[in-house]
Amino acid sequence: MRSVFWENNQLKMIDQRILPARFEIVSFNKHKQVAEAIKNMTVRGAPAIGAAAAFGLALAGYESASSSRADLLADLRHAATVLKDSRPTAVNLAWAVDRVMGVVANIPEGSSADELRQIVLDEAQKIADEDVEINKRMAEHGATLINDGDTIIHHCNTGALATVDWGTALGVIHTAHEQGKKIHVLVDETRPRLQGARLTAWELEQYGISYEIISDNMSGYFLKTGKVQKCFVGSDRTTANGDVANKIGTYMLALAAHDNGVPFYPVVPTSTIDLSLASGDLIPIEERNPNEVLDIQFQGESVTPKNAKARNPAFDVTPNRLVTGIVTENGIAYPPFEVSLRKLTMDDRP
Amino acid sequence: MRSVFWENNQLKMIDQRILPARFEIVSFNKHKQVAEAIKNMTVRGAPAIGAAAAFGLALAGYESASSSRADLLADLRHAATVLKDSRPTAVNLAWAVDRVMGVVANIPEGSSADELRQIVLDEAQKIADEDVEINKRMAEHGATLINDGDTIIHHCNTGALATVDWGTALGVIHTAHEQGKKIHVLVDETRPRLQGARLTAWELEQYGISYEIISDNMSGYFLKTGKVQKCFVGSDRTTANGDVANKIGTYMLALAAHDNGVPFYPVVPTSTIDLSLASGDLIPIEERNPNEVLDIQFQGESVTPKNAKARNPAFDVTPNRLVTGIVTENGIAYPPFEVSLRKLTMDDRP
Repeated sequence: MRSVFWENNQLKMIDQRILPARFEIVSFNKHKQVAEAIKNMTVRGAPAIGAAAAFGLALAGYESASSSRADLLADLRHAATVLKDSRPTAVNLAWAVDRVMGVVANIPEGSSADELRQIVLDEAQKIADEDVEINKRMAEHGATLINDGDTIIHHCNTGALATVDWGTALGVIHTAHEQGKKIHVLVDETRPRLQGARLTAWELEQYGISYEIISDNMSGYFLKTGKVQKCFVGSDRTTANGDVANKIGTYMLALAAHDNGVPFYPVVPTSTIDLSLASGDLIPIEERNPNEVLDIQFQGESVTPKNAKARNPAFDVTPNRLVTGIVTENGIAYPPFEVSLRKLTMDDRP
Repeated sequence: MRSVFWENNQLKMIDQRILPARFEIVSFNKHKQVAEAIKNMTVRGAPAIGAAAAFGLALAGYESASSSRADLLADLRHAATVLKDSRPTAVNLAWAVDRVMGVVANIPEGSSADELRQIVLDEAQKIADEDVEINKRMAEHGATLINDGDTIIHHCNTGALATVDWGTALGVIHTAHEQGKKIHVLVDETRPRLQGARLTAWELEQYGISYEIISDNMSGYFLKTGKVQKCFVGSDRTTANGDVANKIGTYMLALAAHDNGVPFYPVVPTSTIDLSLASGDLIPIEERNPNEVLDIQFQGESVTPKNAKARNPAFDVTPNRLVTGIVTENGIAYPPFEVSLRKLTMDDRP
């Protein structure tokens, strides 16, 4: 099953906020609900929110009562803005929306509003299908980096749930596992929303891959023992120089990997590579509601003082000097990334 | 009020497991209960558990029915082993127990069992009183490092609760605040047991010091913004070369501070400096029950899959190359620590 899919004229998604306690599919009829679902993380993971936003545009088409092509286009443009504004850091949210709108812009004058609605849906479906295919290709490339017996630290969730299916960093691990390599994963829990402890652990159980959960601040300890061979992470936006914006905590993990000579690999579809930005300093970093930090319970008891304040940046930027290689669907980029990333993204991008 | 104190022939402690939700004092009559309280972290913080163990020996004296000096000594020796075994990493647990037993060993042959009991209690009380005085001296030295307007990252809890009173790293911050310096503290929550979010936040509220809670994996992000001026942490054991064992996560914080040129200061009473160990690789690291990692709830909902496994190392070692200076009650040690720590610990140790 895909994490994001179209069925009976509705967009359906696995509700990622309540896993692993409950497995529920939620349905959406309106693009504003989709923007809200991206904001509140019913759906999360850069590739998954890209596909969700593309399907959100398809919903906007069906929501619009317009029978004229021009009016419908205006409604779609409005919806595109709403969807793109839902989260600022992941670049392929904007990429997916822009891709659909680009196709729409090139439709011949004479087409009907209904033809246009169908074209939007078809393009969204194509983005979803391609994401799965791209993940499989990334996984094949990435799996060449994994040896039988490796222990791997993985951050956040980058699996089937974070994408339309299969996953980026976790897809690499999954493919290596299917190739018969014995792998052990140290799953960092990934505060504040605990996507590691919650979603990655759940996925690894489904796949039968050996794992243990650790808190984020333990990675350094385990890297220092010499018993970890690799780190794999995802990325929400990678810039032209190979700086990698990803879920908060990635930078500290990369520092600890680097300090212990352990290779550190982001796994990123080329749709998340933003060649328009020279470096990671230019990436806008979303700061989310502090309650995500404060509203935590330990052994059933509340933790923080009643009126406590908190900060909650959702992403950080790992500088390219800490990155060993970047796995894409077109191959693995190595330093200097300014050259290698440009080459890989030009290869055969759709 | 002290976190650990003797009253009505009982050892009393603030129960640190339930703060800030509830403030409760628990009483102890038996040394085995004290060892258990150290294990289950009713009392935690290297200096506080040192004092608690010393008072635990006093309890062992009163528990013993022996009227002969020799029999009582045997009972005390047994209790000393039980207390020392309760947690392996903090060196001043052993230091405090050994100090009391050293005094006991030097008592003249002729003294009665009751005289001996009183001497044990007096020495425990002396350790507790000295801890407060030592913390105040450390705080005076450390506060010279803090400027008006500083933002400081602090790890775990090192305040009045972690000591008999006043605190080590948090004591430094408290003293600088009392000197009229305006300080803002980024309190990292310190998974798995969340002593930062729970205890440090609570203490800072009592003192009226401005703070925000962050999750451990956010320190790197904030250090990179250039808006953090210093990091202060405690230590459970510091070796002759200046390697610092402290609560898990300290090493990753030190890496991030170092990567951004932000000074990193452990604040350590000389009783936690273990000159008998050449380097941090030799420090035993306690691994605690994995339930401390797994039994967490987010917004009231359970997080980890039912049968998930976890790892739970309680401490890590920060290598001396990441340490800017080490604050002790006798002054601040700077590299090379092999020389400076030996000098400071010889100055006027009791």
